Amino acid sequence: MSPIPVSQQMAIGIDIGGTNTVFGLVDHRGEIHYRGAISTKKHRDVKLFIEELYEAIKPAIDEVGGNDFIRGIGIGAPNGNYYNGSIEYAPNLPWDGFIPLAEMIKERFGLLSALTNDANAAAVGEMMYGAAKGMKDFIMITLGTGVGSGIVVNGQVVYGHDGFAGELGHTIIIPGGRRHWSTGAEGSLETYASATGVRLTALELLEKNPGTDSLLRNHIPEDIDSRLVYDCAIEGDAICNEVYRYTGEVLGKALANFVMFSSPEAIILFGGLCKAGDLLFDPVQKHMEANLLPIFQNKVKLFMSELKESDAAILGASALVWELRED
Amino acid sequence: MSPIPVSQQMAIGIDIGGTNTVFGLVDHRGEIHYRGAISTKKHRDVKLFIEELYEAIKPAIDEVGGNDFIRGIGIGAPNGNYYNGSIEYAPNLPWDGFIPLAEMIKERFGLLSALTNDANAAAVGEMMYGAAKGMKDFIMITLGTGVGSGIVVNGQVVYGHDGFAGELGHTIIIPGGRRHWSTGAEGSLETYASATGVRLTALELLEKNPGTDSLLRNHIPEDIDSRLVYDCAIEGDAICNEVYRYTGEVLGKALANFVMFSSPEAIILFGGLCKAGDLLFDPVQKHMEANLLPIFQNKVKLFMSELKESDAAILGASALVWELRED
Repeated sequence: MSPIPVSQQMAIGIDIGGTNTVFGLVDHRGEIHYRGAISTKKHRDVKLFIEELYEAIKPAIDEVGGNDFIRGIGIGAPNGNYYNGSIEYAPNLPWDGFIPLAEMIKERFGLLSALTNDANAAAVGEMMYGAAKGMKDFIMITLGTGVGSGIVVNGQVVYGHDGFAGELGHTIIIPGGRRHWSTGAEGSLETYASATGVRLTALELLEKNPGTDSLLRNHIPEDIDSRLVYDCAIEGDAICNEVYRYTGEVLGKALANFVMFSSPEAIILFGGLCKAGDLLFDPVQKHMEANLLPIFQNKVKLFMSELKESDAAILGASALVWELRED
Repeated sequence: MSPIPVSQQMAIGIDIGGTNTVFGLVDHRGEIHYRGAISTKKHRDVKLFIEELYEAIKPAIDEVGGNDFIRGIGIGAPNGNYYNGSIEYAPNLPWDGFIPLAEMIKERFGLLSALTNDANAAAVGEMMYGAAKGMKDFIMITLGTGVGSGIVVNGQVVYGHDGFAGELGHTIIIPGGRRHWSTGAEGSLETYASATGVRLTALELLEKNPGTDSLLRNHIPEDIDSRLVYDCAIEGDAICNEVYRYTGEVLGKALANFVMFSSPEAIILFGGLCKAGDLLFDPVQKHMEANLLPIFQNKVKLFMSELKESDAAILGASALVWELRED
């Protein structure tokens, strides 16, 4: 055991995304003291990835006084399983199959470690240091390249019996709808309410309305992404505004279903798509309320996260550490 | 405080249904010693209902030795709110508005009391005395006149921030689908996977297939209900078999969405519609599995409850009592 009191220790939070892996050293109050990032995609061998991560983080550990001053390492990753500390068959990561990442990190760093799904980590960050502080029941929806979710019930993250709960992006919202590029399912939330979904909706609307002018027609289809759609929407482009209105409608209807499951105090939206602000928020709220039973109406606080995107996951991942025990 | 040790006390479990209210005295091991029932519909004044209930239960209390031998009263009721002990705006009960039932029962009987939603009570019964014993994550779906649900996560019933969680019957499964007779929502699970839904599906199929023979055509539409459809189905009637197959398909798809929310170890089906057995079970299982992400496939135990229908709710309601404290 470290001779240093826990209150003087820091926790390392690591967020593994499909493109970049970001990390930080976090103190007990949720202040991030050191930040860094490496590429997730560079190494197909996870051992080389861990080695590069170690080299990147080691100087920060040394600067605070070495391993004695670090409580442990918390990691958020796609398909991360809290129960066994492994990443299992994550389609967006370069490493195939079953990766016992927490164990591998523990060995390389000589520090306790824990791992969870990236969306769950963000929810923990929001609960400990963000707008969900003090809330016992809320749902966090991350709207990025895909759609992730972290669900908190009775003050605890919902992991389910196998550690994989909270795949709300894969629930079917429009049966027989848009086919998912990876799962093959038809009409799942992710095919509409993600950055990828926004792009697909824009392409569909352009094709269905050949007579309607749009700024998007100045670009080749390959260049149309959710940012461009947003930029054109705020310039008043009708098609682009309709893209976000429709995206909000689909998401709002999905949220109504989620509310009738766990009756959360709040739903927190998070991730890149939130940059669309009211263009997205207003239709989400309208269609969520319209699809709720009266007993749930005008009760659920819907808002966008105030934490910086990368910070929430680092904070949430680091928060896992404070609950770890040495054994 | 009663001078009698808790282990020698009994708990009263009451299940208030739309038609009948059943009750029983339950010991610590989950044995039901006395059973009785009164009509729920007889009195529009809830005080008169409570009075009749008191007269019906009092002889059983006297027989075990009086109030000292009773730990308290647990009640399951539609729209029952665990947090405040009230029934709030239950459309299927004869009493309007906000009914502080637990408090009223406590006053009349002179006993501690607690109240919850009827479907939650059944889930608690299943967890303490039925097939879900030892499970920490499961979902119970009651398929009766309507569709109710009780959700257990981390060993606790999910009540949500306001006590109303678990209204899975009202989640939208087929957007723009069948209109709900009471809520007005289009395509909610309850409009398909309930006894009422089975009847409506039968009527629709008869109308859409005027050239197809069916035993149902020997009956006037008013007489067609889920039991008749079942009776005709086991005699080989094609339309009736299709009714249950379709009902199972809709329910199976809904269950897949629920699994991706809380990743339960089991889903337990319960209630009158379960009498259809494999006619319903097989398509439910098939379509649930077909709509799950691979990481969830072939993991969820799907089965029908083995508890007698009225017993599960009595047991679950009574189980609330053991957690009550005098204050």
